[in-house]
Amino acid sequence: MATIADIGVSAALNLLSSFIFLIAFALLRIQPFNDRVYFPKWYLKGLRDSPSQAGAFVRKFVNVDFRSYVKFLNWMPAALKMPEPELIEHAGLDSAAYLRIYLIGLKIFVPITVLAWAVLVPVNYTNDTLRLERLSNVTSSDIDMLSISNIPAKSQRFWSHIVMAYAFTFWTCYVLRKEYEKVANMRLQFLASAKRRPDQFTVLVRNVPPDPDESVSELVEHFFLVNHPDNYLTHQVVVNANKLAKLVKQKKKKQNWLDYYQLKYSRNNATRPIMKTGFLGLWGQKVDAIDHNIAEIERLSNEIAAERESVVTDPKAIMPAAFVSFKTRWGAAVCAQTQQSRNPTLWLTEWAPEPRDVFWNNLAIPYVSLAVRRLIMGVSFFFLTFFFMIPIAFVQSLASIEGIEKAAPFLKPIIEVKIIKSIVQGFLPGIALKLFLIFLPSILMIMSKFEGFTSISSLERRSASRYYIFNLVNVFLGSIITGSAFEQLDTFMKQSANDIPKTIGVAIPIKATFFITYIMVDGWAGIAGEILMLKPLIMYHLKNFFLVKTEKDREEAMDAGSLGFNTGEPRIQLYFLLGLVYSTVTPLLLPFILVFFAFAYVVFRHQIINVYNQEYESGAAFWPDVHKRILIALIISQLLLMGLMSTKEAAQSTPFIIALPVLTIWFYYFTQGRYEPAFIRYPLQEAMMKDTLEHAREPNLYLKGYLQSAYIHPVFKSDDDDDDHDTAIAKKEDEDVLVPTKRQSRRNTPAPSKISGGSSPSLPEAVQEHQEP
Amino acid sequence: MATIADIGVSAALNLLSSFIFLIAFALLRIQPFNDRVYFPKWYLKGLRDSPSQAGAFVRKFVNVDFRSYVKFLNWMPAALKMPEPELIEHAGLDSAAYLRIYLIGLKIFVPITVLAWAVLVPVNYTNDTLRLERLSNVTSSDIDMLSISNIPAKSQRFWSHIVMAYAFTFWTCYVLRKEYEKVANMRLQFLASAKRRPDQFTVLVRNVPPDPDESVSELVEHFFLVNHPDNYLTHQVVVNANKLAKLVKQKKKKQNWLDYYQLKYSRNNATRPIMKTGFLGLWGQKVDAIDHNIAEIERLSNEIAAERESVVTDPKAIMPAAFVSFKTRWGAAVCAQTQQSRNPTLWLTEWAPEPRDVFWNNLAIPYVSLAVRRLIMGVSFFFLTFFFMIPIAFVQSLASIEGIEKAAPFLKPIIEVKIIKSIVQGFLPGIALKLFLIFLPSILMIMSKFEGFTSISSLERRSASRYYIFNLVNVFLGSIITGSAFEQLDTFMKQSANDIPKTIGVAIPIKATFFITYIMVDGWAGIAGEILMLKPLIMYHLKNFFLVKTEKDREEAMDAGSLGFNTGEPRIQLYFLLGLVYSTVTPLLLPFILVFFAFAYVVFRHQIINVYNQEYESGAAFWPDVHKRILIALIISQLLLMGLMSTKEAAQSTPFIIALPVLTIWFYYFTQGRYEPAFIRYPLQEAMMKDTLEHAREPNLYLKGYLQSAYIHPVFKSDDDDDDHDTAIAKKEDEDVLVPTKRQSRRNTPAPSKISGGSSPSLPEAVQEHQEP
Repeated sequence: MATIADIGVSAALNLLSSFIFLIAFALLRIQPFNDRVYFPKWYLKGLRDSPSQAGAFVRKFVNVDFRSYVKFLNWMPAALKMPEPELIEHAGLDSAAYLRIYLIGLKIFVPITVLAWAVLVPVNYTNDTLRLERLSNVTSSDIDMLSISNIPAKSQRFWSHIVMAYAFTFWTCYVLRKEYEKVANMRLQFLASAKRRPDQFTVLVRNVPPDPDESVSELVEHFFLVNHPDNYLTHQVVVNANKLAKLVKQKKKKQNWLDYYQLKYSRNNATRPIMKTGFLGLWGQKVDAIDHNIAEIERLSNEIAAERESVVTDPKAIMPAAFVSFKTRWGAAVCAQTQQSRNPTLWLTEWAPEPRDVFWNNLAIPYVSLAVRRLIMGVSFFFLTFFFMIPIAFVQSLASIEGIEKAAPFLKPIIEVKIIKSIVQGFLPGIALKLFLIFLPSILMIMSKFEGFTSISSLERRSASRYYIFNLVNVFLGSIITGSAFEQLDTFMKQSANDIPKTIGVAIPIKATFFITYIMVDGWAGIAGEILMLKPLIMYHLKNFFLVKTEKDREEAMDAGSLGFNTGEPRIQLYFLLGLVYSTVTPLLLPFILVFFAFAYVVFRHQIINVYNQEYESGAAFWPDVHKRILIALIISQLLLMGLMSTKEAAQSTPFIIALPVLTIWFYYFTQGRYEPAFIRYPLQEAMMKDTLEHAREPNLYLKGYLQSAYIHPVFKSDDDDDDHDTAIAKKEDEDVLVPTKRQSRRNTPAPSKISGGSSPSLPEAVQEHQEP
Repeated sequence: MATIADIGVSAALNLLSSFIFLIAFALLRIQPFNDRVYFPKWYLKGLRDSPSQAGAFVRKFVNVDFRSYVKFLNWMPAALKMPEPELIEHAGLDSAAYLRIYLIGLKIFVPITVLAWAVLVPVNYTNDTLRLERLSNVTSSDIDMLSISNIPAKSQRFWSHIVMAYAFTFWTCYVLRKEYEKVANMRLQFLASAKRRPDQFTVLVRNVPPDPDESVSELVEHFFLVNHPDNYLTHQVVVNANKLAKLVKQKKKKQNWLDYYQLKYSRNNATRPIMKTGFLGLWGQKVDAIDHNIAEIERLSNEIAAERESVVTDPKAIMPAAFVSFKTRWGAAVCAQTQQSRNPTLWLTEWAPEPRDVFWNNLAIPYVSLAVRRLIMGVSFFFLTFFFMIPIAFVQSLASIEGIEKAAPFLKPIIEVKIIKSIVQGFLPGIALKLFLIFLPSILMIMSKFEGFTSISSLERRSASRYYIFNLVNVFLGSIITGSAFEQLDTFMKQSANDIPKTIGVAIPIKATFFITYIMVDGWAGIAGEILMLKPLIMYHLKNFFLVKTEKDREEAMDAGSLGFNTGEPRIQLYFLLGLVYSTVTPLLLPFILVFFAFAYVVFRHQIINVYNQEYESGAAFWPDVHKRILIALIISQLLLMGLMSTKEAAQSTPFIIALPVLTIWFYYFTQGRYEPAFIRYPLQEAMMKDTLEHAREPNLYLKGYLQSAYIHPVFKSDDDDDDHDTAIAKKEDEDVLVPTKRQSRRNTPAPSKISGGSSPSLPEAVQEHQEP
C-alpha cells in the first residue's frame, strides 16, 4: 500500500516533469526557428509571417532578447485573454465548445471539493476504525484515514455521505443543464449568424435505387423534381474516386522523395544519390534515385490521367448517392428531416456534412450491408474490450514491487532502495496502462470507418463513444478489479456477478492511491507534454532539413494537428468519472482532479488559439454525447456508493440512494428532449428567417452557380500539376467563408489534412464565382 | 405435484365449459331477440334490420326454425370465409392486423410444435433421471418425463436442445420479418387507397407559446403563414370543453332516468314513481321522480347553454394547441415531420389523429409538466408492478391443497375427495390470478391518460405495453417464483439476484403444469366466454326492458364493444412468451398453445365481423409494439434456457446459446430500421402522388370548407336538443368516408363511444358540404 509519502514523491516527480516540459516549451517557443511549430494556426490563417524577414542572421534562429526568457509563463494569461466570441470566430464553435468541457469540470468540482473537504473529510477523519484495525494487522494507508473506509460499519455518520451524494448530484445536474442550454444557444446562434455555406442548402441522399432505364443522375433529378417541385435546385452525384485518390497520394509521396534526393544532390554534387527499389528501400535493384523517381512520377501521372478519364466516363464509377441542393434553406431542412419513399431504406436523406467534413469512401454502402457491418463491429468491439484486459492485468501485476521481485529476483537490491521503490510504485502502473492505450484510437477509428459513417465528425464521435466504453471497462473497472485481484483474490472469486457494485464499491477506496498517481502521470505530465508538441517539432525540423526548398514546402512541413475529439474527450470523461466516484468516498482525490481541469483548460486554450487547425466544423454536434457521458459517470458513482454502503451494513440509510439514479436517468431524458433537437434538427423557423433575410439583401443571387460544384470529390478539385495552387486558393476562400478574418490574408497556405488525405480543400471555384462578380 | 391425470381432468373440465359456452352462444345467437347483441356491427353499418318486421309474433323473439339448431357451429366457417381485403374494408385495418397476431402465433408454433415433438420429446423421454430420482424420494410429475428435467446433468443430449433453440429462433425471426413486411405494406396500401380524410391534411400543434399581443388563433395563423407560406390553409384552435362535456353527460344520464320512470308510469298508471334525491337514491328527501328529473334536465340545459356561451367567448378557455390544416398532404407531411422553432418544446407538431381518435382532455399539457408526469407515472407503475405481487402470492399459497388445508382445516375431508382435489388444483390458481387482473386495465388506462397522450390509440398502446410488463413480472415471473417459493424457499433465499435466469430456469419445468392449467382456463374457456358476450347480453335486455321506448333507444342500448387492444394484445403476448419459453423445455405445453391460437383466431374473427365496433382507425400503428414484444419473449426464452442449462452443468454447450440473444437483438434493430418508419412517418413521395392524383381528378375541390370544422370538439357538434339527429348524420357520413359500403345504409345509427364519451361523430357538416354539391 502506498503511503502519503509515496504520493508526495510521485507528486513531486510529476510536478517536476511538468515543470521541465513547461520550461522546455517556454524556451523552444520563443526561438524564431520553431515559430512554425508553435504558432502554425496563425500561419495557416495568413496572419503571421516568417520571422526570417527581419533582423540579423542569428536572430533568425535564436531569440537573443533575454527579457523574453524571464516571462517564460506569459503564454498562460495570453491564452486566457481572448474572449469566447472571438475564440469562436478564430477557431470555430467545435473548439470553443470543447474548451467548455474543461470549464464544466471546474464548475462541477470546485464547489464539490470545497463541500467534501468541509464536511466529509472531518467526518471521515474523526474515527478510529483503521487505527484499531491496524492493531489487528490489517494493512491500510494513511490516505484511507480521510476516506469513507475509516467509518465503522453501521455508523450513523453515513447519513452525511448520503446527503452529500444528493448535493453533488443536484449540483452536477444543475451545471449540466445550464451548460447544455448555453451550448445549444451557442450552436443556434452560430448557425444563425453563419454566412452562406453550401451545406445549408444541401442534403446527402443515399441508397438511390437502381433503375435500368435511367442513370443515377437522371433518377435523382426526376425524383426530386417530382417530390420537391418548388424547392429542388441542382444535384451532384458521387463518384467512386477512391482509386484515383490513392494514386494521387502515391504520386505526392514520390514527389517528396524526388525533392529529397534533388536537395541531397544539390548539396553534394559529387555523387548522384542511389536508392533500392525493394521494400522500404532496404533491398532490391540499385537505381539512380532521381531518375527513378522522375520515371515513377511520370508513370503515376499517366495512370492518374487514365483513371480520371475512366471515372468520369464509366457509369459503374457513379455511386448510388448524391448531394442534392435546394433553392432555399427551408427546402433543404424539409428534405433532410422527412422520409422520401415508401421503403425507408431507399432515398435516405440527411443533412450534408460540410464539404471538408465528408468522408467520401463511405457514401455508397447499402442499408443491409450497414446493418451487418454494425453487428460485426459491435461483436468485435465487445471482444476488443473484454480481452484487452488480460495483458493489462498481466503488466500491472509485473509493475508492482512484489511482481518485479518475483519476475526478476536479481533486481531486488535495486528496487528495495527507497527512492526507486517510490518511483516504481508511482510511475510504472500508470505508464503501463498508457502504453497500451496509445494504439487503441487508430483501431477504433478504423472500426468506425468500416461501420460506414459519412462524415469525419461522426466518425470521431463514434470512436469517442467506443473509446469511452473501453476506458470505463478497462482503465476504470479493469484497474479496480484486476489490481485488487492480487490483494483480495479469494474474496472476489466466490462472489456472483451481481455483487459487482458491492465488489467495486469496496475496492474503490483502496484504489484511490493508484488513481491519484494516474491523474498525475496522465493528467499533469501528459498535458504538459501536449503543449511541448515534441513529435511535430521533430518532424518539422527533419522535413525542414531534408525536403524544404521553397517557402511553400516549409508551409507544408508544418503539422498543426487538431483537437482529436475521438481521443481527447473520452480522456476528460475518465476524470469526470474519477472525480464523481471519489467525491463521496475519498475526497483527497478531488484537488488532483481540479489541478488537471485547470491546467488542461489553459493548455488547450493556448493550443487552440495558436496551434490546432480544425479539419471541420460540426457546430458542437458532439455536445449531447459529452452531456450523456457525464451523467453516466454520475450514475456509476451513485451505484458504487450504494454498493459500498451496503457492505458497510448501513441498511438504514442505503435505500435512500436508490432515488438518485432514478432521478438522474429522468433528468437525462428530460434534457435530451429539451435540448438535443438543437443538435440534430434544423428548425424551419430559423431556415425561413435566413432565407427571407438573404432574399431581401441579395435578390439577384445566382445560387445554382454557388452550389454547382461545392460537393466535388477533392481529387477532382486539385488538378494534377497545379494542385497546390488550387488547393491554396480553395483553402483561403474556405477560411474566409468559415471564419471571417478581419485582415486580408497575406499568404496562401495549404492545409494538410490528417485523416482524410486531401479532403480539406473544399469550397472551390464556386466560392470564387460567387465572390468575384 | 399435478399428474397427467390431474391435467386430464382439468382439460376435460375446461373443454366442457368451453363447449357449454359455445352451445349457449349457438342457441342464443339465433334467437331474433338477441340479434342486436350478437350482430351489432351490421346494425351500426346499417346493413341489417330489426328482425321484428317480418313473421309472426313468436318468431319475433324465438327462433322456431329447428334446422338452424342442428348447424350450431356453422358460425365458424362463416367467420373464416370473409377474405382479408374485404375484412379490412368491413372492419378496418386495425382489426385485420390484430387478427394477424393470432395467425402469427399459428405460423410460429405449428412448425415448432412439430419439430419439438419429433426431436425433443423422444430425446427427453428416453432417459431415466427422474425414475432414478424418484427412487431416492424426489417428487416429480409424469409431465417432467417429457421435459428437459429428465435429462441427466452433463449429458451430451443438451446439444439437441441448443440446435432446436437455434432453429426456433431463426424460424420465429423469419416469420416475424415476413409479417412485419406484410403489415407494413398493408398499412401503406391502406393509407394510399384511403379516401380523403381530414387527418391526411392536418397536423396537431401543441405548446403554442403565450403571446401578450395576439390570441392563440392569430398567433398560429401568423406563424404558419410565415413558416409554411405555400402550404398553410386553415386551422382550428382547441377549446377547453371538459366541463361542458361533463354537463352534457350528466344531462344524458338524467334523461335516461326520466325515460325509465316515464315508462314505469305508463305501464302502471296507479302510482307516480317516487325517488330519493340522496346518494345512489338510497336516502334523502322523497320526491316525484318524473318531475324531479324534468327539473334537473331543465337546470342542466340552462347550465350547458351558459357554459357553451362562456367557452366560446372566454379567451381563457382557448388552449395553446391547434389543429393546423394544409393545402396538400405533402405540406402536412412536411410540417408533421419537422421541427418548427428554435426551442424544441414549443410549436410541437405531430400528425393529427383521426377526429374520432382525439383524446381532447390532454391537448393542453405543457412540455415540462409532461416530463414530470412521466416520471411520476414511471415510479407509480414500478410500485404497482412490484407490490401487486404480495397479494397474488398470498392468494396462490391459499389456493393450493396444502394451503387450504392449513387455512381451513375443517375443509380437509371434502378436499381430499379425489375429484374435488383435481378441480381445486386445476382451477383455483388460474382463477385467483385472473380475478386480480380484472381491475388492472382501467388503472393502467387512467395512468396513461394522466401521462398526457393525445389520442385514444396511443393511450391504448401505452396501456398495453404497461400491461405487458405487468404480466411479465407478475403473471409469468411471479407465478414461477412465488409459486416455487413454497417448494424451494430455502434454495431461493440464499441466492443473489444475478442468478435469476438460473433460478427461473430451474423453476420453469416445474411450473409447466400450472401454466397448462392457466392456458386452459384463460385461453380456452375465457375465449369461449368472450363469444358469449354475457355482460352486453344482460345489459341489452335490461335496457330494452326498462328504457327502450323507440327504435332509436333500442339502437342506443346496443353495446358492441371494441377489440380493446390495451388488454387483448398483452394477453396474447403472454401465450407467445409461454410458448417460446417452453418450446425447448417442456414441449408438452405447445399443443395447448396451438389450440388457444386457433380457437381465439376463429372467435375474434367472428367477433370482429359481427360484433365489435372499432372506435378509431390507427392503420395498424400498434404493429411495431407487437413485433418488439414477441422478440422480447424470444430473448427471455433464450436467457432462461441458458440459465437452466448452466444448472445442468452443460458447461460445454451452454456458451453456444450466448450468440442467440445477440443475434435477436440485432435482428430487432435491423427490422426496426427497415420497417418501423412505415408506422410513424408518411413518405413525401406517397403524399405527392396522392396530391397529384386528387388535383387531376378534382381540380375545383373546395378543401378549406372540407377541413374547416373537421376538428371541432364533439360537444359542439351535437346540439342540445337535436344531438341524436346530428350525431347520426355525422356518423353515417363518417362511416362512408372510412369504410365505404356498397349499399346505401337504411338506418341512421348512433355510435356510443366507450371511452371518450361522445368523440366518435367527427366528420360533420364539412363532409356534407363536400358531398352535397
